[in-house]
Amino acid sequence: MSESPSILLHERDPRGVHTLTLNTPQAFNALSEAMLQALSERLDEIARDEGARVLVIAAAGKAFCAGHNLKEMKAHPSMDYYRQLFAQCSRMMLQIQRLPVPVIARVQGLATAAGCQLVAQCDLAVAAQEARFGVNGIDVGLFCATPSVPLVRNVPAKVAMEMLLTGEFISADEARARGLVNRVVPASELDAEVQRLVTSILAKPREAIAMGKAVFYQHRETGIEAAYQLAGQSMACNMMHEVAQEGVQAFIEKRQPAWRA
Amino acid sequence: MSESPSILLHERDPRGVHTLTLNTPQAFNALSEAMLQALSERLDEIARDEGARVLVIAAAGKAFCAGHNLKEMKAHPSMDYYRQLFAQCSRMMLQIQRLPVPVIARVQGLATAAGCQLVAQCDLAVAAQEARFGVNGIDVGLFCATPSVPLVRNVPAKVAMEMLLTGEFISADEARARGLVNRVVPASELDAEVQRLVTSILAKPREAIAMGKAVFYQHRETGIEAAYQLAGQSMACNMMHEVAQEGVQAFIEKRQPAWRA
Amino acid sequence: MSESPSILLHERDPRGVHTLTLNTPQAFNALSEAMLQALSERLDEIARDEGARVLVIAAAGKAFCAGHNLKEMKAHPSMDYYRQLFAQCSRMMLQIQRLPVPVIARVQGLATAAGCQLVAQCDLAVAAQEARFGVNGIDVGLFCATPSVPLVRNVPAKVAMEMLLTGEFISADEARARGLVNRVVPASELDAEVQRLVTSILAKPREAIAMGKAVFYQHRETGIEAAYQLAGQSMACNMMHEVAQEGVQAFIEKRQPAWRA
Repeated sequence: MSESPSILLHERDPRGVHTLTLNTPQAFNALSEAMLQALSERLDEIARDEGARVLVIAAAGKAFCAGHNLKEMKAHPSMDYYRQLFAQCSRMMLQIQRLPVPVIARVQGLATAAGCQLVAQCDLAVAAQEARFGVNGIDVGLFCATPSVPLVRNVPAKVAMEMLLTGEFISADEARARGLVNRVVPASELDAEVQRLVTSILAKPREAIAMGKAVFYQHRETGIEAAYQLAGQSMACNMMHEVAQEGVQAFIEKRQPAWRA
Repeated sequence: MSESPSILLHERDPRGVHTLTLNTPQAFNALSEAMLQALSERLDEIARDEGARVLVIAAAGKAFCAGHNLKEMKAHPSMDYYRQLFAQCSRMMLQIQRLPVPVIARVQGLATAAGCQLVAQCDLAVAAQEARFGVNGIDVGLFCATPSVPLVRNVPAKVAMEMLLTGEFISADEARARGLVNRVVPASELDAEVQRLVTSILAKPREAIAMGKAVFYQHRETGIEAAYQLAGQSMACNMMHEVAQEGVQAFIEKRQPAWRA
Repeated sequence: MSESPSILLHERDPRGVHTLTLNTPQAFNALSEAMLQALSERLDEIARDEGARVLVIAAAGKAFCAGHNLKEMKAHPSMDYYRQLFAQCSRMMLQIQRLPVPVIARVQGLATAAGCQLVAQCDLAVAAQEARFGVNGIDVGLFCATPSVPLVRNVPAKVAMEMLLTGEFISADEARARGLVNRVVPASELDAEVQRLVTSILAKPREAIAMGKAVFYQHRETGIEAAYQLAGQSMACNMMHEVAQEGVQAFIEKRQPAWRA
């Protein structure tokens, strides 16, 4: 891997497990322009890594991510600047959705505004018991409109609206009950739980996951008939692929598929 | 405020908190033509009140709202009449969604058919422990099709379908677990809990909420890419607005924003 | 009824309650080509039965349904074959949605891959406590893309994604909490609970249910304004129908409607 700028640590292990760690804990890992750019560059890099298998997005310090950098935003009071900033942020979020490998948020602390959006945008999320989640831009007069995009695609509408209007935070357990995170564990077990998901994903073939993740996000936006057509086409391609041919043959022969060995 | 027709009480306090109280308890606050018209007129009026901050929809008596007035419907057995009636009701429901201020249902009792729809259509809902929720038109041979519109946009599909097919009621706790209401409290605390939400909303600027509410309902109906474009544009406008400029500056200076004082 | 091929038992009682029982327990009731064809033919037949009132989809043996028949799939490694197979399966699933009567899944055991999809696609589902639900095609290298179509229309996105990526199963209780099934009971009470739903549905008029079910699935795919137009039109038609005219009149007169007697 190329050298990481210190605001965003980037590790890749031999198995293809990438970890991006937001590393401005003194700024609560805010999504400054520089952080957004660093994330986008890394996501591009990971998208090009044909050996990549999974991405974990983690954070250093007490907070997971505090959302946009308000000082930076205040320093550039122009419509063009804000449009570009939100477009830059949205592009980064969509890179997560388009990445061919699953993206897991490892949430050890507060996830606020665009930081909560980041959790919602990931495919999976594991939270420490003390993590909390809020979209509280409204407290400074800025409704969390872009965070609400993946939020309402994760949690029921009235839950999203209450969070957006009141700015109140929900606990990790409530976030799990509502669909915002998958698993909640004591902080001391956070890495182990993330590794459980990672290990499970590593035991599956990358190609099948890539096809499936892409069509999942595509078909959920369409009517059910078009959804079935898209998904059926994808499954036929997946079934023709050697990983499925081998996987199914191995299943029939009651042995492990070659790609798992 | 103009004099309220007695079927629908209308209060507005100096803070801009509007309360509409369905006031035909002997008719279980049914959505008669007159009630629908009164609601529509009041919603129009509140939409024009630039000092409005929040609307609470409440009800007098034991029931919150029993849905359409069946006697009235039976008295006009014509396709044109029914079409106009459901169109009138749907317009009123959409006025709630389009209102620039948050709308909170204060549910003290039974919410039935279009009464349950009214709860679902509000942005937020607080229920007393004894409130119950059902879409039981099917019991008289009339499937609650229009109530199902906001219902399935609040609760999981199979939950909605079971309610629609069986006509059975769910408890306030179940309604909360499923996403139909935000909070459930003992009847004696219903007003206090509604006031908690109202107070929280009053501490936020009207303009930011108006922009955010509008784009929330708009973007959730589109694909995620278009959603991000709409939301990003809205947030840029919101950020250019003086309320956000002042709110963010106040945050940086660790003081209250001027609009909150 | 015509004679049932033994792989799919078909009963119809005098009340119009159809029961289709997947009957290849030795093959875990897999959705082989023959099973899919048998299901499609029976669904067509039931769609033409004007006295049909409800369909229960049940299964013989320990498993509810193990999804596609992998041996059969492996024996036909061609894109055309797979395309046709998934199209055949999707058509059958959509027949369930289009059937004018409610379809209840009676899930006594494991529901896997397209077997889990079958549960998700039904209008309602009742599960025994020991039933479990998974979309684990990814374990053989085949992402459950078509099962994910109704799955993500039943459960929160991250829950669906976790099931799809890890292949892990969820319990009946978790399935209920997440929206995949309506009710969970001990195995010994499974039939009684299904009958409770059936009895409830039989007490409602077929015509109103048929109109309502059709518009429910149609309007949930559209924006809310178009949804209200569709639903309002449907309710006006429903209200003009004799079942609603009689049902409403009976309600006013505090008697049972004639169609219920």
